[in-house]
Amino acid sequence: MCCEAAIPLGLTLAVLARGPDDAAALVTPLVEVGAPDDARRVAAFAGRCDVLTFDHELVPAELVAALAPDGPPVYPPASALAVAQDKILMRQTMDKLGLPVPAWQPVDRPQDISRFGAAHGWPLVVKRAHGGYDGRGVALVPRSGSQPDLPGQLLVEECVAIRRELAVQVARRPSGDCVAWPVVETVQRDGICVEVLAPAPDLPMETAARALDIAEAIARGLDVVGMLAVELFDTDAGLLVNEIAVRPHNSGHWTIDGSVTSQFSQHLRAVLDWPLGDTSPIAEWTVMANVLGGPATRPEQSLPRVLAADPGVRVHLYGKDPRPGRKIGHVSVCGNDLATLRRRAAAAAAMLAGGQ
Amino acid sequence: MCCEAAIPLGLTLAVLARGPDDAAALVTPLVEVGAPDDARRVAAFAGRCDVLTFDHELVPAELVAALAPDGPPVYPPASALAVAQDKILMRQTMDKLGLPVPAWQPVDRPQDISRFGAAHGWPLVVKRAHGGYDGRGVALVPRSGSQPDLPGQLLVEECVAIRRELAVQVARRPSGDCVAWPVVETVQRDGICVEVLAPAPDLPMETAARALDIAEAIARGLDVVGMLAVELFDTDAGLLVNEIAVRPHNSGHWTIDGSVTSQFSQHLRAVLDWPLGDTSPIAEWTVMANVLGGPATRPEQSLPRVLAADPGVRVHLYGKDPRPGRKIGHVSVCGNDLATLRRRAAAAAAMLAGGQ
Repeated sequence: MCCEAAIPLGLTLAVLARGPDDAAALVTPLVEVGAPDDARRVAAFAGRCDVLTFDHELVPAELVAALAPDGPPVYPPASALAVAQDKILMRQTMDKLGLPVPAWQPVDRPQDISRFGAAHGWPLVVKRAHGGYDGRGVALVPRSGSQPDLPGQLLVEECVAIRRELAVQVARRPSGDCVAWPVVETVQRDGICVEVLAPAPDLPMETAARALDIAEAIARGLDVVGMLAVELFDTDAGLLVNEIAVRPHNSGHWTIDGSVTSQFSQHLRAVLDWPLGDTSPIAEWTVMANVLGGPATRPEQSLPRVLAADPGVRVHLYGKDPRPGRKIGHVSVCGNDLATLRRRAAAAAAMLAGGQ
Repeated sequence: MCCEAAIPLGLTLAVLARGPDDAAALVTPLVEVGAPDDARRVAAFAGRCDVLTFDHELVPAELVAALAPDGPPVYPPASALAVAQDKILMRQTMDKLGLPVPAWQPVDRPQDISRFGAAHGWPLVVKRAHGGYDGRGVALVPRSGSQPDLPGQLLVEECVAIRRELAVQVARRPSGDCVAWPVVETVQRDGICVEVLAPAPDLPMETAARALDIAEAIARGLDVVGMLAVELFDTDAGLLVNEIAVRPHNSGHWTIDGSVTSQFSQHLRAVLDWPLGDTSPIAEWTVMANVLGGPATRPEQSLPRVLAADPGVRVHLYGKDPRPGRKIGHVSVCGNDLATLRRRAAAAAAMLAGGQ
């Protein structure tokens, strides 16, 4: 999607891809194949760029930090990548910035979980500090004595009573200019976002303002350049930061069809230190629904049927192998009637995922 | 722009380009270099495609007609390309279809012009039958005895008193399904379109209906598959067909930002015989302004200034060498106040063209 956004701006994107069949490698002429954690590869690739940026979290922050200081600017900086790549460092940073997160603690020994449960109640949530996403690397621990089956460094967190989940998209330039899109609601199923409602329906103005303040504080606190996504829990006790991403993020895909400036176009503008674009919605409502891979997913086969069923739906396929549970595309619809838009988006996404 | 539209649909576009620096060759990985009138090259290229289509008129229709019958489907068909490539054949075809064109006649001998003038009055318009565009290949002949300095086969046409120029975009599938976008007004300067207003302001409903009828009659009459653009003169005596194009056309670029389905996405859907998309505008007005090359045109340098001046403008650069008078990009803006949108689009286009 970054490649799509680069074309009208006259930009030439080079991509470091794991293999020639990687989604991004299929849609741009300048592709280098190499592992994102291969320091020499990344350094050689960076040496041929004017600006270096990321659309995933797979390049280790240490490796980015070690890039030659006379090389191209790297946005976001390694320090911000590090925070986004490590859930413990992220929570420590939020604590430092005075921003609200669920009660949490690193798990250094198994008994840390029971002790945390004794203090905060059960069930608890245990997460991997590195690499978890889309419900992976997360376990609900129902009671004292049960141990989560997760490898690596863990953290434990209170299981928050959530009204709903919200997300904020912010873009920031090196000069500090910062713009935000309207706060959206993200709807999860089995820990995976299935739907985004833009803007979040019935959101009190003060909650929206608070969400934007939190996101801007994180953007400034982490010196983010480019896109920042902040996922928030909306609770009776107020907003809590759940996760952050320092790149274009799934919760902002609605902006492609639903906003004057998409998060991808904005990300490119921001990392080039160009003036940022208008983040206004183009319709009263935009609904985005994710297409999740399943055993019967053949999007290239179901696409004509989807287009026939709803001539107004916008389909975005990612060129990814449809492994079960994987986000392989999304659809979006814009209009005035939220309930109808939600039905339409869900129907199109289900059809693309292999349903009827 | 077709490459941009192919990405979200999961399509792989291969491009036959004149050279590796051609605009389309810069933005897609599958590029073959070859002249569009090299029959063997085109045939070899076609042999590797599932569907063959065109974004220019430079592949001779005879060459397309001679492609192997067991090769991929070719849309639009050679017969429609032939009509779009030959202004005499186009006018003959309109006459056959009973569609209105300005009074015209082929110029076989120099005196044909004087005779036509004696019958239809002066000045007259003389056009090259092949290859003219953007005001090139057209001459105004002011009086009897003066001869236009144009090579090749010519035609002569009455100089019509035009209220304004209109254009219609239609897409058609092999199965015959046909959809149209709202009729637009095109504003010309020195024979080059500089601005498109979508929809055409203050257009009587019966004129809009007539324009759509004409465009649909041409699409069906020529068996067009893919996009058809029809340029019309709006005169006191009714609508007259001026030119046609059987591909995505400049007068339809407003659809990228201004309509649910862009003409590029629709063209791909049509030539694949996929269901066609919703052609509704996303705003009350969309204004598109062309960026024309000039001696001081450096779009990559002026772009940040343009984005700073108007955060809501959408910029589309084509990666083309900014030769004077050449269309090297366009901008568009959507909103409710037409006069403001026109000012904004004109200002952004002028800045990109090298003005202040």
